[in-house]
Amino acid sequence: MSLANGWWYGLALDLLPKATFMIDQPRFELFAFWRTSATFRVRVALNLKGLTAHEHFVNVDAGEQRDPAFLKINPLGGVPALVLPGHPPLTQSIAIREYFEEIAPTPPLLPGDPLGRARVRSIAAMLATDTHPLVTPRVKRYLTGAGFDDAAWRAWQIHWFSTGLQAVELRLATEADTGAFCHGDAITLADICLVSITAMLKVFKITVAGIPVIDGIVSRCEREPAFAKADPFKQVGAPQT
Amino acid sequence: MSLANGWWYGLALDLLPKATFMIDQPRFELFAFWRTSATFRVRVALNLKGLTAHEHFVNVDAGEQRDPAFLKINPLGGVPALVLPGHPPLTQSIAIREYFEEIAPTPPLLPGDPLGRARVRSIAAMLATDTHPLVTPRVKRYLTGAGFDDAAWRAWQIHWFSTGLQAVELRLATEADTGAFCHGDAITLADICLVSITAMLKVFKITVAGIPVIDGIVSRCEREPAFAKADPFKQVGAPQT
Repeated sequence: MSLANGWWYGLALDLLPKATFMIDQPRFELFAFWRTSATFRVRVALNLKGLTAHEHFVNVDAGEQRDPAFLKINPLGGVPALVLPGHPPLTQSIAIREYFEEIAPTPPLLPGDPLGRARVRSIAAMLATDTHPLVTPRVKRYLTGAGFDDAAWRAWQIHWFSTGLQAVELRLATEADTGAFCHGDAITLADICLVSITAMLKVFKITVAGIPVIDGIVSRCEREPAFAKADPFKQVGAPQT
Repeated sequence: MSLANGWWYGLALDLLPKATFMIDQPRFELFAFWRTSATFRVRVALNLKGLTAHEHFVNVDAGEQRDPAFLKINPLGGVPALVLPGHPPLTQSIAIREYFEEIAPTPPLLPGDPLGRARVRSIAAMLATDTHPLVTPRVKRYLTGAGFDDAAWRAWQIHWFSTGLQAVELRLATEADTGAFCHGDAITLADICLVSITAMLKVFKITVAGIPVIDGIVSRCEREPAFAKADPFKQVGAPQT
């Protein structure tokens, strides 16, 4: 995969181009991988906000995130990392999305009332915090080393994807604030997190049954250009299927 | 442990007292466990903001969070859950702490500038999102069922606590915004998350070496009454050591 062959090697923060875009935003350099759920969340948020980022491919499957050359850019060795010239990388999709919300408030991805915002952040965290961290490559590496074979890893993935999505389904199906999307009829950070998980199901060819409210919301989101454009299979480095 | 014997059984949302406190805040009912890291984060945030909550003990070690009686209060079966009369429970410590920040902005637990806020939220997420979810009781149950013995579970705990804290140490030791606390010289959400993890190290009698910047920040936090009052060993249900 020629695009993956470390073309960013040796790139250091102080060598990044300093030019800014025509629109009023910092120049963002997004270090990313085609498949990761957290990168998907950042891409959708960028698209919804009308922000742009110059994307750099880091081959997580090949371990490039732990390469010394990449560690010069993000000493933490992880993607996504959003770099603004002159600053340490911004990491963690939750923090990056809240940052976008503050610098580009329109369209809002959080409701206007504190309880509504808490509900959206809570649903988002059930997916980004309680579900996604359990099914990451680093966890797979550890469990493989501890004796998990492919079937045991797949059972683990299915268990945590199902647990997380079924808990969210229970909320969405029973709470009055659910609408066409997770919270009312406008897209919020909760929807971004929801689709970031269901997109992983497609990558890993896993089906979670019995989540009709989620299925409806995800279908509506996937019709939105901001989500469609972030489809993992459309990103640099994705397998050509 | 008589306090743990399900005294809240049968309590339903519509039976919760409707009275409000003298100060201007909703009446909060906090369903909590002495030891959990996420509950610790909520307790410290309440203390720092001068908010109060009527706390209910849910014995997670005895599985009370999955009891049908508790599921009437929080259908998701987890702690912490913050209940305001007439609303679905607020869950997820990240969402609860952002909610406190919005309804009680003083003292601020986030910096005033968007990049600073992103940095604080990122450090907080490295701990609450990338570290804590891997060492929860539900993960222990799964891994025990998959064949992990006590030594394998302990190795898992040590690995993820060390990985998370060493990554945070690297940031704190190298980024200019670090001060007496994680971000400058005032306590933020990042410090709350940091101490919520190091407090777990004490509960589980685990030592992580080579994190001097963290050790200093934690010491300063532990001298603050808001943190000292939230010490897990001072909570209802904690072992009498």
